[in-house]
Amino acid sequence: MLATLIELQRLKRLERTGWALRGLPNGTESVASHSFGAGVTAMMLADEVKARGLEVDCERGLHMALLDDWAETRVGDMPRTATNYFGAAARKTAETLAFADIVSGVGAGESEYKSLYHDYEQRGSLEARLVKAADVIDLLIQAYALEHSGARGLDEFWQAAHDADFDLPTVAQEVVRGMLRSLLDARNKIK
Amino acid sequence: MLATLIELQRLKRLERTGWALRGLPNGTESVASHSFGAGVTAMMLADEVKARGLEVDCERGLHMALLDDWAETRVGDMPRTATNYFGAAARKTAETLAFADIVSGVGAGESEYKSLYHDYEQRGSLEARLVKAADVIDLLIQAYALEHSGARGLDEFWQAAHDADFDLPTVAQEVVRGMLRSLLDARNKIK
Amino acid sequence: MLATLIELQRLKRLERTGWALRGLPNGTESVASHSFGAGVTAMMLADEVKARGLEVDCERGLHMALLDDWAETRVGDMPRTATNYFGAAARKTAETLAFADIVSGVGAGESEYKSLYHDYEQRGSLEARLVKAADVIDLLIQAYALEHSGARGLDEFWQAAHDADFDLPTVAQEVVRGMLRSLLDARNKIK
Amino acid sequence: MLATLIELQRLKRLERTGWALRGLPNGTESVASHSFGAGVTAMMLADEVKARGLEVDCERGLHMALLDDWAETRVGDMPRTATNYFGAAARKTAETLAFADIVSGVGAGESEYKSLYHDYEQRGSLEARLVKAADVIDLLIQAYALEHSGARGLDEFWQAAHDADFDLPTVAQEVVRGMLRSLLDARNKIK
Amino acid sequence: MLATLIELQRLKRLERTGWALRGLPNGTESVASHSFGAGVTAMMLADEVKARGLEVDCERGLHMALLDDWAETRVGDMPRTATNYFGAAARKTAETLAFADIVSGVGAGESEYKSLYHDYEQRGSLEARLVKAADVIDLLIQAYALEHSGARGLDEFWQAAHDADFDLPTVAQEVVRGMLRSLLDARNKIK
Amino acid sequence: MLATLIELQRLKRLERTGWALRGLPNGTESVASHSFGAGVTAMMLADEVKARGLEVDCERGLHMALLDDWAETRVGDMPRTATNYFGAAARKTAETLAFADIVSGVGAGESEYKSLYHDYEQRGSLEARLVKAADVIDLLIQAYALEHSGARGLDEFWQAAHDADFDLPTVAQEVVRGMLRSLLDARNKIK
Repeated sequence: MLATLIELQRLKRLERTGWALRGLPNGTESVASHSFGAGVTAMMLADEVKARGLEVDCERGLHMALLDDWAETRVGDMPRTATNYFGAAARKTAETLAFADIVSGVGAGESEYKSLYHDYEQRGSLEARLVKAADVIDLLIQAYALEHSGARGLDEFWQAAHDADFDLPTVAQEVVRGMLRSLLDARNKIK
Repeated sequence: MLATLIELQRLKRLERTGWALRGLPNGTESVASHSFGAGVTAMMLADEVKARGLEVDCERGLHMALLDDWAETRVGDMPRTATNYFGAAARKTAETLAFADIVSGVGAGESEYKSLYHDYEQRGSLEARLVKAADVIDLLIQAYALEHSGARGLDEFWQAAHDADFDLPTVAQEVVRGMLRSLLDARNKIK
Repeated sequence: MLATLIELQRLKRLERTGWALRGLPNGTESVASHSFGAGVTAMMLADEVKARGLEVDCERGLHMALLDDWAETRVGDMPRTATNYFGAAARKTAETLAFADIVSGVGAGESEYKSLYHDYEQRGSLEARLVKAADVIDLLIQAYALEHSGARGLDEFWQAAHDADFDLPTVAQEVVRGMLRSLLDARNKIK
Repeated sequence: MLATLIELQRLKRLERTGWALRGLPNGTESVASHSFGAGVTAMMLADEVKARGLEVDCERGLHMALLDDWAETRVGDMPRTATNYFGAAARKTAETLAFADIVSGVGAGESEYKSLYHDYEQRGSLEARLVKAADVIDLLIQAYALEHSGARGLDEFWQAAHDADFDLPTVAQEVVRGMLRSLLDARNKIK
Repeated sequence: MLATLIELQRLKRLERTGWALRGLPNGTESVASHSFGAGVTAMMLADEVKARGLEVDCERGLHMALLDDWAETRVGDMPRTATNYFGAAARKTAETLAFADIVSGVGAGESEYKSLYHDYEQRGSLEARLVKAADVIDLLIQAYALEHSGARGLDEFWQAAHDADFDLPTVAQEVVRGMLRSLLDARNKIK
Repeated sequence: MLATLIELQRLKRLERTGWALRGLPNGTESVASHSFGAGVTAMMLADEVKARGLEVDCERGLHMALLDDWAETRVGDMPRTATNYFGAAARKTAETLAFADIVSGVGAGESEYKSLYHDYEQRGSLEARLVKAADVIDLLIQAYALEHSGARGLDEFWQAAHDADFDLPTVAQEVVRGMLRSLLDARNKIK
């Protein structure tokens, strides 16, 4: 377990490549910071969805949100454009192999973590799809916060807010769409 | 929900004061990065403890790990020495008030989050105590990682590894102690 | 004396929390840098006020400007909102206790430094009030400089420029108000 | 030409992932900085080798050194371990495709740049092999400089200094080996 | 050769003073990163000019572009305003002396490097003038990239784009002017 | 007055070149932070010397400590080696000219500030020599603090601690020497 946790410390220093490539300064957001943001967002979404009567396995969702980016300690935080050149399938395969090596010997959770990682990558369950929505929402809130403090040149990220379709049941979709709408409204006020 | 998530973005940029005060460079660790580390550690500890037969409410634990540091968006990341001058009780009261304001209007989870925060601050449940252990372990692994890359002057942190008593049931205590022992062994190899 | 000076080195690395919480990058301003700015501003204000015929003890003022933030090595750079949760009195008490510990054993100046710190906290003398004005002016000039290089989202700081009443004698008040007016004019040109 | 040069600005901000993963602070080395170092080293090696009587096409070599890392604007600075999961061939293919897109429309040099990139990737010419040696030497001098200022935990990089075989003609090999030997000597003095 | 290369590592960390003085964050651009940018720009310009039928010694040009800023390891990256106080002649003399010390003992290239440095400083050859144009163009593209991501207050740099006269033959001048025009057009779109 | 204060904000961001050239990370120490450190040290030294019966004009000393580095907004923070190439006299002349331009129009203090700057540069008075001692002591305490947190390669700075002769009266010399001795003792404990 310790070896894995030592390796995961690396995510605290690894910068999110997307911001660096757009000229934002070092320290804008670490991969670990983003995972925290996605985790918190997933937690709030799940709790809200549950309160509206749809069953969600929150423990499962939080596991997925927290382990989503571990492979980056070995393959780095590849920008979205990298997928154009490697292909989405090759990228998933490589990241899955890296994830398996990272959790090798982690202890009791090893096989469960691999199974959760696979579910998340496949968007197989409601929890996986909700965590994916949380991942995108945290990205957009970060973009909003950066724009609020003066950053420019981030328009392309916002396309995601319009295109977003996470294939969710109606109740969950309403929560997610409501949040995206509020975020777009907030952004319009600072543009 | 959105207002709270926007405010929590601040934790991605807020430096952990303890490192800054010891002369380590900016970007060493954000509060959000630490929360990620504590969350992942709590997850692994809980899964390991459960596998050894002790019931743990992991969903509850992960909630606590993720929301533990939210008050810092309003009171900052106060160093440990601040407690000597404010008093532990005043510090807890202030942070609890700040937490309540932050989650005000967060939606379905609001009262549950306040109750979890209170439980964590009181170390009332097994989950709270396990998350506290995870919080300390992540701090020590970060210190180890820093020393591994050349940092010095961090001896005082390691006292925690020797003093640590998290008031845990035997099974959980064995897992925590085992991890601390492995960490001290790893550190001895690089000193 | 040496122990105090070693401890004060920490202020060179400690980031001003207010900028971090507003999403500005690490390295925006250290506490020591701000103290330098406040010290220089206090010096210029005092020299100008003296030239206009009002007696000011500049040595006393510069002492106050330089020692104003020492307590932050032990309690951190708490954001303004922290006062809402701790209370202004508790905050002053804690910082005064921390200051006393820091200067303990500093040598000849110890009791004088405590007395100056107390005067500054109470805004008891003309010098204390002039240094407080310098502290606010340096904050606003820093905000202006940040906006000049592209930062946004700092409007709330400027309220201070309008509200500012430092309870100064007419001569000093004219100097301070004149500077704030010039600063607001400069800002209007870049908005 | 301009579109390519704008895109290449990104390399000035992109951190070399290898240092970040080993806990070194942001700002340690940008990809552009490394390309500068490799370019200067290649220039000196080529000039030295030429002075010893072996023909080298220095213009060709400098082109290769300067364009070696352009693909990273689209695929990021992948750590060495990424190759274990993607495979060396897939990585080369992806980077070659990215390079081709980046230089598309660059003007007169486009086809020559693609040909030089291919030569470098294949280590087909003396110049390609000499530039590869320069690339490794700059990495090691950077590691030495980091260790000289206190960094630790970089031992694995130095294996390259022992294993290095760049398949060079005798004259060039002597120059490269001589430099590596001097570097190892310098390192022994600071360990 | 090694001593020189070790010393040149310093350029990877040395910030370009011009950005720091305008309030841009640390990590904006190192001197080494700028040299990379100027080198790449010089390469493209030379290749384009050659393709249009004008002979250029590209090897010579790339040497100049790469060694242009070496003196900064010993005199620092002096801002443009420094020349007002030292005088242009004194500045050139000092930098030339520093350059000579840096390349002392570099090996086969020493006297050639000094001669190239002198040529560049005097703008004696077509290559020197083309590299100077590349140096200015890289500065402006960096300014554009910074403005694209939100930086403000950089207007004074753009004067160079209007004033630029690099005393080039018609063919080269057309290439340089064409690039500056495109850059100004791009800037107009984001203002 | 405002124009000067706006210009001096630049010192908060300007890195001390000496640390950057030795491979220490950005954010190690700004020029403004160093001026704060020198100011505080000068204040303590003066207060201690006065308490031992030697008359010191502390107001005059603090003025000098605070304005010592203003010229760097226009000439940059030149490393010590720059003096070898420009000559000490040319450097002083240039910095004095820059200082005069910076304080031009500062208001009541202008001519006094120029006179104080001149006195400091000439080390003409006891105050000037005491402030020079404070400047060196702050440099060494910063070096000590950096070594305490893991930095290496700073030995050359410590020569100053042995060579230091500030041409002070006996009482002041005892205070300064006592502090340097204590600092060397502290350093020996962490080497």
